[in-house]
Amino acid sequence: MLNSGLEGVVVAETGLSAIDGEKGELIYAGYDIADLARNATFEEVTYLLWNGKLPNRDELNRLNQQLVAERELPAPILQLIQGFPADSDAMAALRTAVSALALYDPEANDNSDEANRRKAIKLTAKMPTIVATFDRARKQKPVVAPRADLNTAANFLYMLTGEEADELRVRTFDAALTLHAEHGMNASTFSARVTAATLSDIYSAITSAIGTLKGPLHGGANTRVMETLEAIDASGQDPEQWVHEALERKERVMGFGHRVYKAVDPRAIVLRELADTIMQGAGETRWLDLSDRVRAAMAREMEARGKKIYPNVDFFSASVYTTLGIDKDLFTPIFAMSRVTGWTAHLFEQYANNRLIRPKAQYTGPRGLRVQPIDQR
Amino acid sequence: MLNSGLEGVVVAETGLSAIDGEKGELIYAGYDIADLARNATFEEVTYLLWNGKLPNRDELNRLNQQLVAERELPAPILQLIQGFPADSDAMAALRTAVSALALYDPEANDNSDEANRRKAIKLTAKMPTIVATFDRARKQKPVVAPRADLNTAANFLYMLTGEEADELRVRTFDAALTLHAEHGMNASTFSARVTAATLSDIYSAITSAIGTLKGPLHGGANTRVMETLEAIDASGQDPEQWVHEALERKERVMGFGHRVYKAVDPRAIVLRELADTIMQGAGETRWLDLSDRVRAAMAREMEARGKKIYPNVDFFSASVYTTLGIDKDLFTPIFAMSRVTGWTAHLFEQYANNRLIRPKAQYTGPRGLRVQPIDQR
Repeated sequence: MLNSGLEGVVVAETGLSAIDGEKGELIYAGYDIADLARNATFEEVTYLLWNGKLPNRDELNRLNQQLVAERELPAPILQLIQGFPADSDAMAALRTAVSALALYDPEANDNSDEANRRKAIKLTAKMPTIVATFDRARKQKPVVAPRADLNTAANFLYMLTGEEADELRVRTFDAALTLHAEHGMNASTFSARVTAATLSDIYSAITSAIGTLKGPLHGGANTRVMETLEAIDASGQDPEQWVHEALERKERVMGFGHRVYKAVDPRAIVLRELADTIMQGAGETRWLDLSDRVRAAMAREMEARGKKIYPNVDFFSASVYTTLGIDKDLFTPIFAMSRVTGWTAHLFEQYANNRLIRPKAQYTGPRGLRVQPIDQR
Repeated sequence: MLNSGLEGVVVAETGLSAIDGEKGELIYAGYDIADLARNATFEEVTYLLWNGKLPNRDELNRLNQQLVAERELPAPILQLIQGFPADSDAMAALRTAVSALALYDPEANDNSDEANRRKAIKLTAKMPTIVATFDRARKQKPVVAPRADLNTAANFLYMLTGEEADELRVRTFDAALTLHAEHGMNASTFSARVTAATLSDIYSAITSAIGTLKGPLHGGANTRVMETLEAIDASGQDPEQWVHEALERKERVMGFGHRVYKAVDPRAIVLRELADTIMQGAGETRWLDLSDRVRAAMAREMEARGKKIYPNVDFFSASVYTTLGIDKDLFTPIFAMSRVTGWTAHLFEQYANNRLIRPKAQYTGPRGLRVQPIDQR
């Protein structure tokens, strides 16, 4: 029986996350994501995903030191990124730079658990540097070296802008990273596992995951949400009217609905709260206000059609990142910077209990043909 | 129910190829692969996979012209490859260069069928140039530009060696390309489809496929076969004895067995014939002789254990490519150069009838935990 979306097919057991799509619940290794976003840092969540428990202070300090020590890029990767065309797709640039990192890691093809854990640290530490370097280079601004005294969230905002972000912004961005870190057997995670299951290396697997995340039906959606908000803003139209007309034209309004959630995406709730805090702090409520009006309009329109549809994580991350001053085409690379922790955690599981992932295709073409000489075709 | 290998799960309908694992049969779009390998060129097979029929002379000429016109690499890609460390993993280099190609293709993110067909031509034309350039550059030999008057097989051997290969070698290599072009929903093809199913672009999908092919449980096996043959040769041992001892040590002898084939891999039969022809022509039967002795030893050992095991496509491609003077770590990149035609053909099918590919994971971890302050952990 054809199952082209693999709906309901269980391809792995995992200790990493559980999604209850009916209840709108997401837990990482036992902890509700709202609890983690409010009461733990992205580094603590990274430790949780990689080790199945939250770190004590010593364990966290050690992880922080390891990450800080790996933030710098090898010189050829720095040059590579600075040589990318200024109009490069940000995800294609990230995919290429991560793929190239393998060439400068003597452990790239060592698939032992110890080496893979070191590579997970390298990837998690270096991907923010790649994204920030790419953005600075394309704007012809001097590249900002990472700072050892800042956490992942603070250091990224610093490398991006050249200035230290305030506590509120850092905390908001940190929580957004936590909310994007892991999400079960999503398409990018699955592609990483499919790649690793041939016993290919972790750089290959993460390169696959980045390319998969890039698509608008997955990570690419957050950039599209911002494009939609900007289009509504630029139209001068009432958001309710804009949404109504878009739906009448059978267009998809980005940032709503999810393959797994049939209730509210719990990440959207936490992000909505974050958005509120930061926008009040920044004195900038424009995008949040617009988001709320679009959400309300969608709810009304869907109710009129006898349907329910809810905003997903991408819907509010767009306004949060925009308020943080981040270009919209970096939203998906930022998603990758965070999700790499979940991807690598899944890869530890995959390598520990590997089986080649090889489904079937049903052949529907002709049979029994014979090659005829070319002049008789 | 957990199905970690997705055995028997039908994820797509395809008109591209059918495998009968019991009978040992493989057809591409209706044609037996032995018929194609003997009576058609790799370009004709490429046309078949992309269009569902063999080309007439005009159609073939047009495809040849399109491929020839796209063989050159953009200057930054040429520089990129020349800048790779000399000891780079050849598949990591190919993966990185293909990913980088997207940055120099203005159509990279255009997912229309027309643009995707143009990109398939570009990838098929440029991947041999990437592989040959990589090999020349790492050996500090001058890069050889592609030649418009040679077909894919002849041009690749020319770019690799700087000399025109004789007819027998070209024909053998051409047939080897045909035999590797397509093989149902194998792991690399599947990874390309998983990536594309988020509506990511064709460069992302092919980059995923290359990373997936790299693994020793998939395309990486042909390099391992050659390592095994070399190890036997270097041991000075009788091959029968070597195989026996390896099996006693519970080691896997590379090049035997296949997830799908429970009979002889039909590609192995054709390759064995090719190997014979070329090695007789080259006056070099050493690797073929050794291969035959290893195969016979494996058959006897397996029979003694009450099992049957057959050589797969990788078993004979190793000695064929070695006799053609190709370094063993290029075998998997050559596989990719050929399989890119099947990958792209699958992507045309995927984009034409897309559904996000998102299986499930079964959560086995704890529930109901609460984040405790770090000093209480």
